[in-house]
Amino acid sequence: MAQFINKREDVVTEAIDGLLAISGGSLARLDGYPHIRVVLRNDWDKSKVALVSGGGAGHEPAHAGFVGAGMLTAAVCGDVFASPSVDAVLAGILAVTGPAGCLLIVKNYTGDRLNFGLAAERARAFGLNVSMVIIGDDVALPELPQARGVAGTLFVHKIAGALAEAGVDLETVTAAARRVAAGSKSIGMSLDTCTVPGSPKEDRIPAHMAELGLGIHGEAGVEQVDFIDARLAMEAAVSKLAAAMEDRSYVALINNLGGTSTLEMSVLAHELITSSIGARISHIVGPASMMTSLDMHGFSVSVYPADEAEIAALSAPVSMAAWPGVSTVKPVIVNMLPDGLTPIAPLSSEHRETREFIVKCCRILVAAEEDLNALDAKSGDGDTGSTLAGAARALINAIDRLPLSDHTQLYRAIGQELSQTMGGSSGVLLAIFFAAAGDAASSGLPMRDALKAGLARMQEIGGARLGDRTMVDALSPALDALGDGVRSAALAAREGANLTATLLKANAGRAAYINARQLEGHVDPGAEAVARLFEHLAA
Amino acid sequence: MAQFINKREDVVTEAIDGLLAISGGSLARLDGYPHIRVVLRNDWDKSKVALVSGGGAGHEPAHAGFVGAGMLTAAVCGDVFASPSVDAVLAGILAVTGPAGCLLIVKNYTGDRLNFGLAAERARAFGLNVSMVIIGDDVALPELPQARGVAGTLFVHKIAGALAEAGVDLETVTAAARRVAAGSKSIGMSLDTCTVPGSPKEDRIPAHMAELGLGIHGEAGVEQVDFIDARLAMEAAVSKLAAAMEDRSYVALINNLGGTSTLEMSVLAHELITSSIGARISHIVGPASMMTSLDMHGFSVSVYPADEAEIAALSAPVSMAAWPGVSTVKPVIVNMLPDGLTPIAPLSSEHRETREFIVKCCRILVAAEEDLNALDAKSGDGDTGSTLAGAARALINAIDRLPLSDHTQLYRAIGQELSQTMGGSSGVLLAIFFAAAGDAASSGLPMRDALKAGLARMQEIGGARLGDRTMVDALSPALDALGDGVRSAALAAREGANLTATLLKANAGRAAYINARQLEGHVDPGAEAVARLFEHLAA
Repeated sequence: MAQFINKREDVVTEAIDGLLAISGGSLARLDGYPHIRVVLRNDWDKSKVALVSGGGAGHEPAHAGFVGAGMLTAAVCGDVFASPSVDAVLAGILAVTGPAGCLLIVKNYTGDRLNFGLAAERARAFGLNVSMVIIGDDVALPELPQARGVAGTLFVHKIAGALAEAGVDLETVTAAARRVAAGSKSIGMSLDTCTVPGSPKEDRIPAHMAELGLGIHGEAGVEQVDFIDARLAMEAAVSKLAAAMEDRSYVALINNLGGTSTLEMSVLAHELITSSIGARISHIVGPASMMTSLDMHGFSVSVYPADEAEIAALSAPVSMAAWPGVSTVKPVIVNMLPDGLTPIAPLSSEHRETREFIVKCCRILVAAEEDLNALDAKSGDGDTGSTLAGAARALINAIDRLPLSDHTQLYRAIGQELSQTMGGSSGVLLAIFFAAAGDAASSGLPMRDALKAGLARMQEIGGARLGDRTMVDALSPALDALGDGVRSAALAAREGANLTATLLKANAGRAAYINARQLEGHVDPGAEAVARLFEHLAA
Repeated sequence: MAQFINKREDVVTEAIDGLLAISGGSLARLDGYPHIRVVLRNDWDKSKVALVSGGGAGHEPAHAGFVGAGMLTAAVCGDVFASPSVDAVLAGILAVTGPAGCLLIVKNYTGDRLNFGLAAERARAFGLNVSMVIIGDDVALPELPQARGVAGTLFVHKIAGALAEAGVDLETVTAAARRVAAGSKSIGMSLDTCTVPGSPKEDRIPAHMAELGLGIHGEAGVEQVDFIDARLAMEAAVSKLAAAMEDRSYVALINNLGGTSTLEMSVLAHELITSSIGARISHIVGPASMMTSLDMHGFSVSVYPADEAEIAALSAPVSMAAWPGVSTVKPVIVNMLPDGLTPIAPLSSEHRETREFIVKCCRILVAAEEDLNALDAKSGDGDTGSTLAGAARALINAIDRLPLSDHTQLYRAIGQELSQTMGGSSGVLLAIFFAAAGDAASSGLPMRDALKAGLARMQEIGGARLGDRTMVDALSPALDALGDGVRSAALAAREGANLTATLLKANAGRAAYINARQLEGHVDPGAEAVARLFEHLAA
């Protein structure tokens, strides 16, 4: 399984340097590569309580992505899924801790507890005021006295971060962090394992099964369950949370474990809100990748019964893009469809000359059906003649309901008929041609100018330019010459159509996929139709 | 390939309803399900230019995720990878367009061009002022006259969005959008195809190959290239962009195509900045999932030579979380490591009684080596005795450099020695015990209270409670009884140690993984060590 990394041993430092370079100078790191990887706020003056978190890499954006105003002061990064050393943690603490002290936020994994714990002791020997909170929010194994720390950690980062940013003292920040840590509950679910850099991917989960109760290091879930659909998957997950929830309102955090598409995450958010715990979710954070397990195709849901002050803390602004913000959950607002979707049929009206002209044009196209099909067979699928003839027959049938005496309305009505009766791109393009011509005519332009306006719009939408081997090659010169009469237009159309037989590369339309030899010597069928139309009108 | 969806035909509407429910009431939709799926701002009063975009689904968060103040007014969503209908687009236009008019932002795919184009014509027939910009930013096929529209579309959304939000007129917004569309260039690369809901995943890309020059609908890339590492992959991608770039500064947008881990995206950001075009990149948007291709394991880079006003527009605030903001690219800031990582060895000092006491304790542990190993072999890996004896021998060897006459310093020095000489968790835990005891002693606590403070800290970090079958079960009662003399402490330690033989479930330490039958009748070796120590001291 290839991955977008270089040498495995450089992945963490390169990722950190990438993060730093695009931080706009708001972040810095300590000069301790490769072993000491500490990311810290560059605007930090040690005047407030410092928040230091971290742990193994592979959970990005946690934790370095959450360093910044309003969340962490520093993050200490280990190797992928491995705790940072005591020295690295100590370096982080010493670099950011001033008289206001420091809170360490640690996920409950043995290595992190021990290394952060010993670093805290060593920092205290320097007279620094260091406290520590351990997060164990995972409910996958309720009987385990030491639950793992997973995405609920974000609640602690954010609420403690907002308090620290507001200048609250260490004791108060620590008490708040402990309260949030104690009240946060999380559960994870995945359809696949993750790919650890440099290692083959474990093929542990059978098709149509999901793992429920996951940590964030690729370790097996507590159980494998049948996977039916997103709804039942979410219900299986939240039923684990429900056992730990009271009858009050909660903030939910929905986390992408790394490899789930944004489309799926939105479906999962929908299922969460409509799940059996949905009525108790007043606010939501995400869906977003916050505490990932590399590229794991899974999600986690965390809940915390935040009070008003805590919701304010969750809502406080931060400087980094990784925190998605908190929203209130509300019923979907559905607005009425606007008027105008069903086109109002224009009042039909009579105009003998117009009627005869339209019918004549249509009959010319009907008569050309076989020839145009034969021509199209050389460079396409042989249906140009039938498509045009079909539309022409439909227009003849519709002639009695057209507003023949009002040219502006007539263009639009023809466009409307064509868009309903003529399939494929050409139907839409001709509908655009007539609609735009109608638009121009309604502004008072004479017929030729209105048709040229229609052509321009059709070209803009269709993308065909002169010389692209389309009907435009006949229609454009014909409209240009129309000022000198239909005969001139017919000559110009024919010349343009014939020219298409020498164009060895089609740049628009389906013939763009045909090679030069197949095109050579054959007039484009659309251009031929235009030429025939003008020739017969001139005859 | 299982996915977190329900019925395939519901995936788009469910995802939209998920997005809406968590929008905090800032978004609404039209009542046109299942065919008309239009997401719009709920705070919209039609007083400014409306921006409408959309296209097939599968590119989330594009486009519905970018609806909100400062970006799109409405998004029209098709099925996965399929253009929305003319009616759906028209509904979107009619719902949001007022006297200020509407700009349609359309990616260059035939279906989108035609359906948005015809909808625009139909909207104009209602007298609405509608303009349209078509984005073709993909440079994968430079000879193709109609390049595909991909992630560069975001530049247009954001810059036009900021102008429209500022109340600029339609003509100006449209001109700006056309300028940005013309100047945006993008290239995509992927290691794997995407999973279209309800279809099996195509296995098109061999291992160790990458596809370069991708659209965003799972279509094959223009070429397959060897995949070596992230650096060469990024260089291959940006070399395609370089051909279309001038010698000036650019904003780059780095987009996750859906299934790339956040860790990889940071590495790719690093490679982009250090690539051959890196020096020309003054600002960066992302990395983030913006214009995805479902779960594709790939990325795209877009560049646009924004001027100062456009950078201001890119930087203007928006209401939605999907836009990651724009940052200036700056050299990585590296701060010096803090002092204090190399512990200053305390000045050694002599204190005969203390020396004799320490050596006595150490010899007791050395003498117990074999017994403790044997005990540990029953519930662990048989090395508790050797670990403790090794640390004891190291401490005897270090005795001449210890600050024997200063108890506060001595605790810390012993902790430091143990953390350097004693492996595993127990070394760290005992180091924490002594460091915390030293901390307490330095605040003036007498010895027993200092040791109890050390124990409390060790328990906090290690997580072991009384009754968890660890050394705590002997040490805690011993320290409690120490007020009545060493003999009382020894009795209490022995009683506590013996109790561990009846504890059939270890809740901390490695014995937590051993079953009850293996534990029954065996004293925990750590607790036994504590008991022996006090017993020999009391003797």
